[in-house]
Amino acid sequence: MSASVLPKALAFDVFGTVVDWRTSITRESAAFLTAIGRDDVEAAAFADAWRGQYIAAMIGMRKSGRAFAVLDVLHREMLEAALRERDIDPEGLDEALLADWNRAWHRLDPWPDAVEGLTRLKGRLPIVTLSNGNVALLLAMARRAGLPWDAILGAEISGAYKPDRQAYLRTAEVLGIAPGELCLVAAHHGDLAAARGCGLLTAYVDRPDEYGGAPAPDAHYAQSWEWSATSLTDLAAQMGC
Amino acid sequence: MSASVLPKALAFDVFGTVVDWRTSITRESAAFLTAIGRDDVEAAAFADAWRGQYIAAMIGMRKSGRAFAVLDVLHREMLEAALRERDIDPEGLDEALLADWNRAWHRLDPWPDAVEGLTRLKGRLPIVTLSNGNVALLLAMARRAGLPWDAILGAEISGAYKPDRQAYLRTAEVLGIAPGELCLVAAHHGDLAAARGCGLLTAYVDRPDEYGGAPAPDAHYAQSWEWSATSLTDLAAQMGC
Repeated sequence: MSASVLPKALAFDVFGTVVDWRTSITRESAAFLTAIGRDDVEAAAFADAWRGQYIAAMIGMRKSGRAFAVLDVLHREMLEAALRERDIDPEGLDEALLADWNRAWHRLDPWPDAVEGLTRLKGRLPIVTLSNGNVALLLAMARRAGLPWDAILGAEISGAYKPDRQAYLRTAEVLGIAPGELCLVAAHHGDLAAARGCGLLTAYVDRPDEYGGAPAPDAHYAQSWEWSATSLTDLAAQMGC
Repeated sequence: MSASVLPKALAFDVFGTVVDWRTSITRESAAFLTAIGRDDVEAAAFADAWRGQYIAAMIGMRKSGRAFAVLDVLHREMLEAALRERDIDPEGLDEALLADWNRAWHRLDPWPDAVEGLTRLKGRLPIVTLSNGNVALLLAMARRAGLPWDAILGAEISGAYKPDRQAYLRTAEVLGIAPGELCLVAAHHGDLAAARGCGLLTAYVDRPDEYGGAPAPDAHYAQSWEWSATSLTDLAAQMGC
């Protein structure tokens, strides 16, 4: 599947689409759980619980009228909540350890095709982030993983979290292009559906291992996207890069 | 001259520090002036007149209470004013030609040491823009010139033009570091003085050809900066990169 006219820029979802958050957060959490003497807690389930509060946090931000807080702050709140669910009191833990655990989100490993795919796509089109991650998080991740972004855009720059329309529309505006000239690349049907609702082009990348084999929570949003690829190198090939 | 402790990130002024705006704008304006049958207008003087309104425009933005407008918009207003000063009515010119002329600021050539210097510095420290240029302008410039920014920050992201304090402080905040952990790299003493006033570290890069040999308008702000270099490769050497 491929559309005939290329977009003027590609904007990428990051968590799950470019990087494998679950494997990295599981590995890091296993080490931190051991460090606090709680290796009885299953690390993959802990990673799922930490990330599982994410959608609720996004909706909560929107409904509560709370001033925009960056994802590093929300991740920390979600970490403390996930710990409390397991009867671990974060107040009793070392602050430096908690801060470092929270920064595990800065150290996510890319999917095996990501760096090559992004590099090839960048040869033809501007590539930017359109992630709910904050700039400091995405910058640290990019430097560690070698993700060659042209610019880091998204929620913090837009002042709104996806799937708020402002996150998509403001990204196109900052790039100086129309929404229909920007293509969101994402592994999540819900994200793509929201982008399409704002007039963006859409490219789906299949990441069947994102949830460790469990079904994606937004599978019901699946539809026919302008592009559909099995990896970022496959997308690059489809876009003639 | 070199400080012993490195900053956590480097933020770069761009126009004049990384790219040679005057040579590029002169060359492009010469071609456009020829295209409109006005090669009697001296192109270097036209470039100086176009850029010359810049400081006034920055101050005007601040004092007028006008909502933040990106530099592409201000450049267009300054271009039309510079044309009118030479009795050229922009209303009588082709819109596509004017838009392309204005985008000359997206096509500025780097100083000869810039790409190597930035690449070496990036090997050790995050490098971001802290420019009054807007994201679309700086992104297009970076792709054309090969400037390897980790992130494009500055006026548009901060919602304020330098030398407004918000431009410097918000850049540090977005990077998740204290002002004193961020170093501004600039060829302009006025910019560095404003950054120092906000607590940033400062690195001066000498660009004696920026104004075609004419003295810098902000020379009276000169002082002893944490670093002082003759080029970005010299700065890289001083920072052990």
